[in-house]
Amino acid sequence: MGMRAIVAGAPDQLNWQSVTDAAPKSGEILIKVVAAGVNRADLLQAAGKYPPPPGASDVLGLEAAGTIAALGDGVTGWTEGQPVCALLAGGGYAEYVAVPAGQVMPVPDGVPLHHAAGLPEVACTVWSNVVMTARLTAPELFLVHGGASGIGSHATQVARALGCPVAVTAGSRNKLDLCAELGAEITIDYRNEDFVSVVREAGGAGVILDIMGAAYLDRNIDALATGGRLVIIGMQGGVKAELNIGKLLAKRGSVIATALRSRPVDGPGSKSEIVAEVVENVWPLVQDGEVRPVIGAEFPMSEAKAAHELLASGDVSGKVILRVDV
Amino acid sequence: MGMRAIVAGAPDQLNWQSVTDAAPKSGEILIKVVAAGVNRADLLQAAGKYPPPPGASDVLGLEAAGTIAALGDGVTGWTEGQPVCALLAGGGYAEYVAVPAGQVMPVPDGVPLHHAAGLPEVACTVWSNVVMTARLTAPELFLVHGGASGIGSHATQVARALGCPVAVTAGSRNKLDLCAELGAEITIDYRNEDFVSVVREAGGAGVILDIMGAAYLDRNIDALATGGRLVIIGMQGGVKAELNIGKLLAKRGSVIATALRSRPVDGPGSKSEIVAEVVENVWPLVQDGEVRPVIGAEFPMSEAKAAHELLASGDVSGKVILRVDV
Repeated sequence: MGMRAIVAGAPDQLNWQSVTDAAPKSGEILIKVVAAGVNRADLLQAAGKYPPPPGASDVLGLEAAGTIAALGDGVTGWTEGQPVCALLAGGGYAEYVAVPAGQVMPVPDGVPLHHAAGLPEVACTVWSNVVMTARLTAPELFLVHGGASGIGSHATQVARALGCPVAVTAGSRNKLDLCAELGAEITIDYRNEDFVSVVREAGGAGVILDIMGAAYLDRNIDALATGGRLVIIGMQGGVKAELNIGKLLAKRGSVIATALRSRPVDGPGSKSEIVAEVVENVWPLVQDGEVRPVIGAEFPMSEAKAAHELLASGDVSGKVILRVDV
Repeated sequence: MGMRAIVAGAPDQLNWQSVTDAAPKSGEILIKVVAAGVNRADLLQAAGKYPPPPGASDVLGLEAAGTIAALGDGVTGWTEGQPVCALLAGGGYAEYVAVPAGQVMPVPDGVPLHHAAGLPEVACTVWSNVVMTARLTAPELFLVHGGASGIGSHATQVARALGCPVAVTAGSRNKLDLCAELGAEITIDYRNEDFVSVVREAGGAGVILDIMGAAYLDRNIDALATGGRLVIIGMQGGVKAELNIGKLLAKRGSVIATALRSRPVDGPGSKSEIVAEVVENVWPLVQDGEVRPVIGAEFPMSEAKAAHELLASGDVSGKVILRVDV
C-alpha cells in the first residue's frame, strides 16, 4: 500500500516519494488527485519558513482537483467518482488527499479538471478578502498589485464582474497586456511608473489587494480613496513599516491583514463559509465565462522543484499547476 | 441685531462676543441654543490646530441642544419651538446655530434639554465606529480606552446594551468606579496595570475604541482577538507608529482610523446617515434608561475658558456642557 506525495523539506528535496495512505476521517472526503495548484506559501513551507497549522498534513499543497474516492462517516450530498476541487490546509501534492467536506467544491461546468486545481486558493482568497471583508462595491476603483499573478488575474476578473473599474501593477509589458485583456482599465508598470499618482488621478482606490506588505504600506494608504480599505494578504516586501495614523484618519481608511490558511474549518469566518460563498457567487461567473482560470504553466508532479523555481522567478503569469495524471 | 458667540482664536480669548446672526439656508434648521457640548476638537481648534472643514462656521462647537427657531426652505417634518439637539460642523457656542436638517435629532424622552447637548457627538461617534464600521457583535469583548470620558461612558453603556462584555482603561479609582457602575466588567488602571495582559486573559477584544493613536498601536493589536478590529478616533499619543503587519495578519485584524467632522452631510457614510441610525437605534436605549447621558460639569457660556481647562486637565468624567440659559 502507500501512495506517492511530496513532503515539506529543503527546497532541493521535493521528491515524489512513498508515504502513508491518506484516509478520510469522519466528515471528510477522500479525493483521488488529478492536479494540485502551486502557491507561494508552498515555497515558504518547502524552505521550512511556514510550518503548517497544528494537525495539518506535512505533505505540501493548499489546493487540488480530482475525483471523489471515498466519503468519510456522516458525509452526504457527494458521490464517489464525482469531479471536485478543494481548499486544503495541506496535502495536495499527493495521489490522494482527505479534506473536510465543507472545503470541497464541485468543478464549474466547462473547466478542465486539472485547471480546476488552480481555482480554490485564488477564488477563496479574492472573494473572502475583496467582497466578504473589504466589501468592494461598484463603482469603486479596485487596485490589485501583481495583476498578472494567479490572485491578480482572478481578482481582476471578479472585480470587473462586480462592475468595478480595475487598476493593476505588474513588472513587464507582457504581464500588463494580459491584465488589460482580463479587463483592467488602468495598467501600471511599477518599474517605470508611480502607482500612487496614477491611482490618485483616477480618484483613489476603494479597495486595494496587496501582497507587498511593509514596502507598500505608506504608498497604498496614499492611493486609497476616502473610506478606502487596504487588504494585505502577503508580505513579500517586509513585515514592519511606519503607519501614519493621521493620514489614515483623514481618509477614514482601513488596513486589514488576513490569511486563509489559519482560518477554522467551520463557523463564522471559516473556510467552509468562504467555500460556500464562492460556490454560490463565483462559480456562476466561471461557468458563464466571465471569470476564467489563467494557467501559466503545468508540470508533472515529479518536476515540482522546477515548478517552484518558475513561480519564485516571477517569470510566469497566472497559476502554476502540478499534474499527477501525466 | 447680531448674536453672541465664541469664535476660534487663542485659548485665552474664548470671549462671549457679538457676531453676525446665524441664518438657515435652504435645507437647514435654525436652533435657538440652550447648551453646547465641549469636545477635545474644540480645544485643538481654539489653539489653532484643527481648522474647521471648508465652509464651516469659525464659531466653536460641534454639538448643541435647544429649540427650533426657524426652518429653511424645503425643510419638512419639524416644527418651530420643538426641542432638538444636533451634530454640527461648527457653530454650537452661540445663541443660534443653523444646521442641515439631516443632522438634527429629537431630544430623547426624559433627557433634560441642556443634557441633550452632550449626546450628539458621543452617540454618533460610538454608533458609527463601534457598530456601523467595526460591527461589534455579542458576545465579543469590547475595549474602550478612557472609559470615564464622554465617549467612553457612552460607549460602555451602548456595548452593554448590545449584550457585549466591556473592558475599560482609566487613570483613577473614581473613574474606574464610574465605569463599573455603567456596566464595565473589566476595569483597568492604566497607571498600574498592563491592559494587554488583562484583556488577553479575557480572550482578547473583538473591537477596541482608541483615542491614543501611535502610543497604543502595537499594544492594541496585541490585545485584539482573532478577527478583531481596532478603531482609532483620536491621536492623543501621537500620529506615527510602527505597524507589525505580520502580527496583524496572524490575527486577521483590522486597523481603522476615522473621524466624524470631515464626513459629508448626505450620502453613504454621511452625517445624516449616522444621525438617522442613532435616532433609530440609540435613542430608544436612552429613553429606556439603558444608556444615560453622563454629565461631568456645566458652565455658563461666559466661562468657556474654564470649561476648556477642565477638559484639558483630564480631571472630569463624562461630558462638559456650556449653557446659554444660565
